[in-house]
Amino acid sequence: MIVIGEKINTSIEQIGQAVENKDKSAIEEIAKKQVENGADYLDINCGTFIDDEPAYMKWLVETVQDVVDKPLCIDSPNADAVESGLKSIRHGTPIVNSITAERQRWEAMLPLVLEHNAYVVALCMDGDGIPEQPDGRVKIAVRLADELARKGLDAENIFFDPMVNPISTNTQNGLITLETMRRLKQEIPLARIVCGLSNISYGMPARRLINQVFMAASVVSGLDACIVDPLDRRLMSLLYASEALAGKDEYCMDYIGRYRSGLLD
Amino acid sequence: MIVIGEKINTSIEQIGQAVENKDKSAIEEIAKKQVENGADYLDINCGTFIDDEPAYMKWLVETVQDVVDKPLCIDSPNADAVESGLKSIRHGTPIVNSITAERQRWEAMLPLVLEHNAYVVALCMDGDGIPEQPDGRVKIAVRLADELARKGLDAENIFFDPMVNPISTNTQNGLITLETMRRLKQEIPLARIVCGLSNISYGMPARRLINQVFMAASVVSGLDACIVDPLDRRLMSLLYASEALAGKDEYCMDYIGRYRSGLLD
Repeated sequence: MIVIGEKINTSIEQIGQAVENKDKSAIEEIAKKQVENGADYLDINCGTFIDDEPAYMKWLVETVQDVVDKPLCIDSPNADAVESGLKSIRHGTPIVNSITAERQRWEAMLPLVLEHNAYVVALCMDGDGIPEQPDGRVKIAVRLADELARKGLDAENIFFDPMVNPISTNTQNGLITLETMRRLKQEIPLARIVCGLSNISYGMPARRLINQVFMAASVVSGLDACIVDPLDRRLMSLLYASEALAGKDEYCMDYIGRYRSGLLD
Repeated sequence: MIVIGEKINTSIEQIGQAVENKDKSAIEEIAKKQVENGADYLDINCGTFIDDEPAYMKWLVETVQDVVDKPLCIDSPNADAVESGLKSIRHGTPIVNSITAERQRWEAMLPLVLEHNAYVVALCMDGDGIPEQPDGRVKIAVRLADELARKGLDAENIFFDPMVNPISTNTQNGLITLETMRRLKQEIPLARIVCGLSNISYGMPARRLINQVFMAASVVSGLDACIVDPLDRRLMSLLYASEALAGKDEYCMDYIGRYRSGLLD
């Protein structure tokens, strides 16, 4: 599992203020903490600074790379901000997060992705929004994968996001996302699957419990990468347990190692 | 989800001693506690009293029914003990746990099941043991369902147990059981699926985490009933969350209700 730490996001009040004040040490601390707790990638999102997003992105990418050597996930729908982030990358293969099947959006991003040898997150939605059923979402993914391949981006470089709508609006929404994951694995086996999990519990009480069971079910349905809070020790413990359950942890050695290191709560 | 409380089992030392001493109040207490915490059925297992199992079964069934009105799961491979338990049933539809596809075993139990209008747990195994792959397990289930139907027991009355081998011996064992559940739902849609979950984590550290994620994955794979410890509040909380995630809790009202009652940890 590729764990993408979600904490460096300016829509989180504390982070937004730290970025506004150019408080380097606050950003460094949250970057280091996420890596210490198991993050393989760090997501960088400063979308709340609409006018100055490229400049803030540059500052964040540089600040984070000063203290951790993990690769980054440049999280913005704005091609200028993405370009600014990618140009500041010093190590690893970045992920551009995200494109959709809207031609305008992926055509603006694709040259950047190719130039910087990046991976890209592709949302299973187009200009008409998110299809309700797995069928429609998978069709979008297949069409987009074909188009991107023709332009020079292989499926291995794509992380598809099956899209998550909350169960509070439709109790079938969890099953729809899980079925989309399984179908994506069948239809485009070389592509990987990424998901931000927490939208599933929007509008529900005790959200963490819903997030935890959704994560477990997602891992056995084919999830390869997830955007989560690595400081949530309970969630991370269940993530390692899910990997062992899903047969993705050879001889369960990773799980047992983490247990021995006292990392399982 | 039908929650079958597993605590009245004489292989648990404290329960074994209480039964040996005919300590009525100890058994009453554990029966009441399980029901208070969400058990829909109570499993009764006194298999450690090999010679006197029928007599102990009778005493346990009577003792438990004196204080709770939930139906019981008569848990023994011994037809005499099952008969003794069924004869003492005063309310509800009991479950006989269990038969296998070994003719001798199911032929001894079937008349009892039919006479007492009971449900039966059928293990997906035969005289040769548990098939390694889902295919073999589902074939056994289909053959057994056909044979039982010819003898007068409909699929609606069967709970199939897909069988759980620990991931510590083969990391694919969790996926094999989950796939067996999905296949059983397709092949014999009228039958239900039951599972004792905890064998999955045998030989692993931090077993509870493995059990929790396996439960979540099982619920979305079609589990209808599970044999668990209802006093494990964390597991029960995740069970209700799993039901909501699996679209089995209309408008998530059960989950929300339990949250309001302070039952979610």
